[in-house]
Amino acid sequence: MKPSDSRDPGRCQQANEVISLVGDKWSVQIVVLLGTGTKRFMELKRAVDGVSQKMLTVTLRGLERDGYVTRTVYATVPPKVEYQLTDLGRELLVPLQALGAWALENHARVVAARIAYDTRDAVDTRPALSA
Amino acid sequence: MKPSDSRDPGRCQQANEVISLVGDKWSVQIVVLLGTGTKRFMELKRAVDGVSQKMLTVTLRGLERDGYVTRTVYATVPPKVEYQLTDLGRELLVPLQALGAWALENHARVVAARIAYDTRDAVDTRPALSA
Repeated sequence: MKPSDSRDPGRCQQANEVISLVGDKWSVQIVVLLGTGTKRFMELKRAVDGVSQKMLTVTLRGLERDGYVTRTVYATVPPKVEYQLTDLGRELLVPLQALGAWALENHARVVAARIAYDTRDAVDTRPALSA
Repeated sequence: MKPSDSRDPGRCQQANEVISLVGDKWSVQIVVLLGTGTKRFMELKRAVDGVSQKMLTVTLRGLERDGYVTRTVYATVPPKVEYQLTDLGRELLVPLQALGAWALENHARVVAARIAYDTRDAVDTRPALSA
């Protein structure tokens, strides 16, 4: 989004609609994991720290609905279900990995900012919240 | 994040910690808006469609704490409060704008995928959710 685009509410809404999906942390982790190859449900469950079975199911269904992931069922007993990225999902990996790389590179600066903020706030007497 | 990094839980957690903040839709919109210049609280409130005063306050404080935004109070009556991006915030704009541009370019594909999914599901008889 160029600055000029941010003044166009319709365009901005389109971008936000996609970003708010890819921005939720489970979706990002799952897309990045599937970037390393096809995975079964339980592999994803084990790899995504702290995700519940229900949240993983909901998130995968959202990613499938938005066209980032395909779900393939094999008629075995018990049925085998595999998830993999579509072309769209693989293309999404590019800007996501750039954001992830930025986050890794700058994590220490964010942590330092938080410490500075929390220390400062101990002596902060700020006026009304909004003005 | 390169695929190899995604197998390192510590690194992945660091990236997720940043992404889960920047991924929330208000934060992204506010950082992008502030990318066009310094703004007052009410300017942001008007520009960010659907945000409540409370959510805007909470989001700005989170962005300030993480070092993306500074808040400057001018001792006027009534006090004037301005928000602007820090160097870190301006650097974050680069991968965010890349993601935003991707989202804009591919919005139609996501919408088409949703329509296909919702149509297909009308006749879908899928087995157990997870396998």
